[in-house]
Amino acid sequence: MSLEFHIEATAESARRGRLITPHGEVETPVFMPVGTLATVKGVPQDVLEDLGVEILLSNTYHLYLRPGVEQVRKLGGLHRFMAWDRSILTDSGGFQVFSLSELRKLTEEGVTFRSHLDGSSHFFSPESAMEAQIGLGADIIMAFDECTEYPAEPERVRKSMELTLRWAERSKKHFEGHKQEVPWDCAGTQALFGIVQGGMDLGLRRESAERTIEIGFPGYAIGGLSVGEPRALTREVVAATIQHLPADKPRYLMGVGTPEEIAEYARLGIDMMDCVLPTRAARHGLLFTSEGKISIKQARYACDRGPLDPKCGCRVCSRYSRAYLRHLYASNEVLAQVLNTVHNLTFYLDTMRAVRHSISLGR
Amino acid sequence: MSLEFHIEATAESARRGRLITPHGEVETPVFMPVGTLATVKGVPQDVLEDLGVEILLSNTYHLYLRPGVEQVRKLGGLHRFMAWDRSILTDSGGFQVFSLSELRKLTEEGVTFRSHLDGSSHFFSPESAMEAQIGLGADIIMAFDECTEYPAEPERVRKSMELTLRWAERSKKHFEGHKQEVPWDCAGTQALFGIVQGGMDLGLRRESAERTIEIGFPGYAIGGLSVGEPRALTREVVAATIQHLPADKPRYLMGVGTPEEIAEYARLGIDMMDCVLPTRAARHGLLFTSEGKISIKQARYACDRGPLDPKCGCRVCSRYSRAYLRHLYASNEVLAQVLNTVHNLTFYLDTMRAVRHSISLGR
Repeated sequence: MSLEFHIEATAESARRGRLITPHGEVETPVFMPVGTLATVKGVPQDVLEDLGVEILLSNTYHLYLRPGVEQVRKLGGLHRFMAWDRSILTDSGGFQVFSLSELRKLTEEGVTFRSHLDGSSHFFSPESAMEAQIGLGADIIMAFDECTEYPAEPERVRKSMELTLRWAERSKKHFEGHKQEVPWDCAGTQALFGIVQGGMDLGLRRESAERTIEIGFPGYAIGGLSVGEPRALTREVVAATIQHLPADKPRYLMGVGTPEEIAEYARLGIDMMDCVLPTRAARHGLLFTSEGKISIKQARYACDRGPLDPKCGCRVCSRYSRAYLRHLYASNEVLAQVLNTVHNLTFYLDTMRAVRHSISLGR
Repeated sequence: MSLEFHIEATAESARRGRLITPHGEVETPVFMPVGTLATVKGVPQDVLEDLGVEILLSNTYHLYLRPGVEQVRKLGGLHRFMAWDRSILTDSGGFQVFSLSELRKLTEEGVTFRSHLDGSSHFFSPESAMEAQIGLGADIIMAFDECTEYPAEPERVRKSMELTLRWAERSKKHFEGHKQEVPWDCAGTQALFGIVQGGMDLGLRRESAERTIEIGFPGYAIGGLSVGEPRALTREVVAATIQHLPADKPRYLMGVGTPEEIAEYARLGIDMMDCVLPTRAARHGLLFTSEGKISIKQARYACDRGPLDPKCGCRVCSRYSRAYLRHLYASNEVLAQVLNTVHNLTFYLDTMRAVRHSISLGR
């Protein structure tokens, strides 16, 4: 067994389902918190469990650099390494190579890049990205793609999409030949998802979807969005692309978005999403609440005895005041990051819970 | 009711007891974790409760500067401000004024100092230190003293001791006149402890103890140690000073020490201790274990699947490997500080639990 996906209820375009990986069940639509370096910054794993997190995303690029794939593999893979028994998804490293690293050189073969940590030179190809992700041993791994920049000339977008398609084939071929090498001790193998590219061109998106489906994957991601385009355009591309994805396979929209956006994309028929926004915003004191976004650093909260969000039942809102959270943030205390992150993740997970509930009710 | 102290078992010089404050019971000998700015850096209050922490120490100097005493007072005092219902002790601010601030000017009246944060000028006297500690509203507060530097000339040590005695009288007088102003909503008042000084001179220590007892406090601290003197000398001064303290009152040794030292001081008859060592060392990756001190940053732990301390039952040792803790520390991840602190505090609290158990058994 590598992956099962069962749709249990639908409401117009939206679907509620269960994703079953070798490490457990995931209720969809799901928001996946980002644990870049095998940790959701500041939050212990038992707290993530208490929050109801069923699947985490980790970044191949970062783990490849630190502590290194071989290290994680020797230690039994990501699950054992970070003491997390539930599901994990890793990205392919492609997006970070294009967004974080310097002096990259792209060829048909792959991409040469310099580490953002020490400037050392590295090379990722579809094959080496698969090797890395098999060594890390997440439940769901991603084909190595080129994330097309925005804006881009039509010719450039097509060329980039064609490259991603050739890389998708190579990713699948390498994965099929090596998937038994996953360092797990449990039954089952990993599942490899394909990624649809095509920039903001709806025709290319359709072509990318159809040709990726021809290659054949157990799940499909929509990549290349949230790269600087207007949000209305993101929505348009998502809505158009979904039409060309098979209804019985999970659909993963990469790297989005605000609480309103993830609810909206779920309504369009997206099953999986990830975003650094709740965790990164927390570190900057930006907190999502039922009354809107709050910047906890503001002096107006210094004497506010009320909870951060009176409608939230998380361990932060049920115990601490805005005044205390403001003090922690203003004093640069580490507990600020811990508590802010727990709250923002709760808000995102609650948003998805509400969406799933609405779908069950047919709304 | 302000404070009760019951001795329940003794073994040679050591005593096991219960300290009862308006916010609960504290089993002694006790180690008090330091929560400088109304937070034990990186550790949420519910985790401190799970660890069995019954009393925390907070620093008046730091809270006076941030968020300010008036702010905490308006919010109902420290307990409500930081959402901590168990006991709290605040120091008088004297030690930090002498160790952290710049350009201090000492007079009979008090001490003028500059904030280590922004260089602004402030003044602490016995009266203003009491006012600050009443506003913060800890269960146990400390007389304003001068912490004598080491080494110091005999004449200087006597003068400093005499000043501390005059300040102790003024502290008590101000406290007695204003203790009803504590911003609590629960019954009872604060308890003010006196501080014995006298440098490393055993005769002056005796005189300081006797004259502080004459002023009369519900508990006595030994201050002015751990200021650079050799550890054997610390022990000698502690052992000698204890002889002159009343047996029926709690004895608090300020600012010590290693796990071995706190066990040793408890054996000498000390009831309360605090130290930044477990929390500060944790932030530097120095971890206390049953097998000795570990520097988790070392490369030798990179592939170590074992728990940090195989004899420790804390949530860190029961879940994570040394390899993972090393990765978190090497990657500068915030979770490193959180987990390391939880473990080191567990080690200190377990050490005191073992000491109390030994005393009960008469050993």
